[in-house]
Amino acid sequence: MEFELNTPQDTICAISTAPGRGGIAVIRISGPESVEITDRIFHAANDKKLSDAKPNTTHYGSIVDDDNHPIDDVIATLFVAPHSFTGETTIEISCHGSTYIQQQIIALLLRKGCRLAQPGEFTRRAFTNGKLDLSQAEAVADLIASTSAASHRLAMQQMRGGFSRELAHLREQLLTFVSLVELELDFSEEEVEFADRKKLTELAQEIEHVIKRLSDSFSLGNALKNGIPTAIIGETNAGKSTLLNRLVKEERALVSDIHGTTRDVIEDTVVLQGITFRFIDTAGIRETHDTIESMGIERTYQKLDQATIVIWLIDATHAPQEIETLSAKILPRCRDKHLIIAFNKIDKINDATRQQLTNLYNRLTQETPGASLIFLSASHNQNIDALEKRLTDTVNLSNTAENDVIVTNARHYEALMHAHDAIQRTLDGLQSGLSGDFISQDIRECMHYLGEITGQISTDEILGSIFSKFCIGK
Amino acid sequence: MEFELNTPQDTICAISTAPGRGGIAVIRISGPESVEITDRIFHAANDKKLSDAKPNTTHYGSIVDDDNHPIDDVIATLFVAPHSFTGETTIEISCHGSTYIQQQIIALLLRKGCRLAQPGEFTRRAFTNGKLDLSQAEAVADLIASTSAASHRLAMQQMRGGFSRELAHLREQLLTFVSLVELELDFSEEEVEFADRKKLTELAQEIEHVIKRLSDSFSLGNALKNGIPTAIIGETNAGKSTLLNRLVKEERALVSDIHGTTRDVIEDTVVLQGITFRFIDTAGIRETHDTIESMGIERTYQKLDQATIVIWLIDATHAPQEIETLSAKILPRCRDKHLIIAFNKIDKINDATRQQLTNLYNRLTQETPGASLIFLSASHNQNIDALEKRLTDTVNLSNTAENDVIVTNARHYEALMHAHDAIQRTLDGLQSGLSGDFISQDIRECMHYLGEITGQISTDEILGSIFSKFCIGK
Repeated sequence: MEFELNTPQDTICAISTAPGRGGIAVIRISGPESVEITDRIFHAANDKKLSDAKPNTTHYGSIVDDDNHPIDDVIATLFVAPHSFTGETTIEISCHGSTYIQQQIIALLLRKGCRLAQPGEFTRRAFTNGKLDLSQAEAVADLIASTSAASHRLAMQQMRGGFSRELAHLREQLLTFVSLVELELDFSEEEVEFADRKKLTELAQEIEHVIKRLSDSFSLGNALKNGIPTAIIGETNAGKSTLLNRLVKEERALVSDIHGTTRDVIEDTVVLQGITFRFIDTAGIRETHDTIESMGIERTYQKLDQATIVIWLIDATHAPQEIETLSAKILPRCRDKHLIIAFNKIDKINDATRQQLTNLYNRLTQETPGASLIFLSASHNQNIDALEKRLTDTVNLSNTAENDVIVTNARHYEALMHAHDAIQRTLDGLQSGLSGDFISQDIRECMHYLGEITGQISTDEILGSIFSKFCIGK
Repeated sequence: MEFELNTPQDTICAISTAPGRGGIAVIRISGPESVEITDRIFHAANDKKLSDAKPNTTHYGSIVDDDNHPIDDVIATLFVAPHSFTGETTIEISCHGSTYIQQQIIALLLRKGCRLAQPGEFTRRAFTNGKLDLSQAEAVADLIASTSAASHRLAMQQMRGGFSRELAHLREQLLTFVSLVELELDFSEEEVEFADRKKLTELAQEIEHVIKRLSDSFSLGNALKNGIPTAIIGETNAGKSTLLNRLVKEERALVSDIHGTTRDVIEDTVVLQGITFRFIDTAGIRETHDTIESMGIERTYQKLDQATIVIWLIDATHAPQEIETLSAKILPRCRDKHLIIAFNKIDKINDATRQQLTNLYNRLTQETPGASLIFLSASHNQNIDALEKRLTDTVNLSNTAENDVIVTNARHYEALMHAHDAIQRTLDGLQSGLSGDFISQDIRECMHYLGEITGQISTDEILGSIFSKFCIGK
């Protein structure tokens, strides 16, 4: 196996700050020998050894190499087990941020008995030592990757255990449940029923409901984490590009931040009020008139299908007949979406046309409950703020209380789906009067999948796959 | 003025670690209000205030925004004035390394009364508060930028005051000197000579010698800092590219490090035994046969003139006549340089040819004291290590004891040149029996320029120009 879990005996080190040159850099050392190893290379200005130092104190001194040459003047900070991030005794060396110095100190630590940490190994040790459960550990990576207020809030909430608390509560209920059922099995010859089937069914229904709610929250959670897929559709001359530029403009700095930190190319990302919107390119729609049934337009519809929010931008000066033609194609696909029908170029129409368009909108969207209407001018920057508010409102509408637990992690989502299957089978079993041993098996399976999320149930394979996605030094 | 010096009243903050995403990041806050401001946004897990904490201790807790929402769980470290890098009370917040979190904490600190630090402002405050003299402060920037063992060692030495000690010693001697001369002025009517002119001359000569040695060390210091300019000349089919690849190969990682951290494009840099060699491109020499007097070859000679080391790579299978033709052009230009005449493709010649070439070399280089001979094969990787040793030896020969003070900074070099002029004028004045007031003026001028290096004499303009070259956060 590539990643060995059960070697908490060795002491690991890594550069924990961002790669490259900075004012300072921090090198982290964690493990039973961290003080001993650091004392071999660190000479405190007051000649004291770190082994004699108090926990949570900082010490000024020099890192010296094998020939007693100074490599750098540093601050060493001591955290004594279990009161550290990893739960092990940890030392953080704050050195000057030259890449040369960082490399030299790491090389020296390796020579003195440290091992270079694997990606995420500090956090993995925090998990192994019970400082964090698995979903909290995963939230650490999400937190570091967070680029918007929403993704940051979800990661913070998860890291602080919001998710774990809800799951722990579920497992507790299931344990009571399964204990009663399994108690019956011990008395199987007497055909007693300790567990009131009616109450059990109610409990299972309640649990099914909670699991369903959690797994349903994934589409929102995933969207908040990765950006809400938003399609701007419309003919090219409708002003789509102008609108996109208007929306992107204010946040260009943040957009470029995201480009620098993610591996995949993001088409166009805008952060509005802390929520990331990921705009989906749908240039194909201008071919509508000629090849309405063609591959080109089909691809646009496919992209439209991927979106959570659809902004249909219409040139208000165009003939409404065209709208009606497209409506038959677009509206049925938007029943479960937030559809914003935006009439552009309002500076060029009069009140009568506006009323006419409103009537048209009302007639067309009778069967599209998620639709809303807005008039704007992209080129004159009119009502763009209203559109932005409409966009953020779509999320706030779906989103509920601030402390609601939202699932953002595909691994958690998958485990929740499995847990849901198991609890559904439990419910079916209860309804069809299945015997206790089968029911208990389904409940145990449900508990297993919930435990996979928090790490109460884990394999080296799962752990390896989770922590390998971390950066080195965390 | 762009950069205000005398505002130590305000509290500054900046991200001190390398930009971008990392496991952790460090935000530094320095100034009289740093504890008060941090206490407004930092909630320690044990509910203690930083204002009640002991110096040099770390504290786990949360950074919360105006609405009491947690931004991150962090470690805050307290350094109390004057025992900090800046000499002011300083707090370092170690947070998760998401760019979003870093930005949010900085934004919060700015709202709570901090000002964003200018480039180098923390180090400037360390200078203002007497924690470092100016040459030590400048060494901090060099230390952060250091990419090789040699540049690192020089910066460390300078930061630790090696340079300042030597200059302080010089100024002390000059002060004794000038005091005696000026004492005479008070008794000018009596025509006494407190200062023995013979001893004064000896002292001035000694000081002149030291200043000369320091300013002479600049060419080496500058080379060690920026890479020793090394020209590989020779016809194209001599194997120049193959040789360069051989030399660069092992250190490619370090080379790319340098590219990432410097602004200017470096042609080809190789770090050998901790010393950086900067290879200068001289492709032009292949045009030798046709246009020996042309502009093209002139440019090659110009580049050759810039080099400290010249490797003249010659195809050993070529006719020696060609060598003799070029020698007249090359050798006179290499009198003050390290010239390595390297015969390539030795796998293709026999012992007789080798002897013949050695004789040729001996005859040609009689008036080129810095010349040395080497036989190698670039494509068969023969004797490349010997060439590398020859390269590093050229530096070790010029370089003397490890604790020798070497000037690396152009500003220091310029001040030393001025100081040298002044001490030279002093010597001339002593020799020509100039009156004490003129001599004392020259000595004072010499002291002034030496003081400019350590910062005992400084202007806002000098300081602004020095610290603006720092990165933000240091």
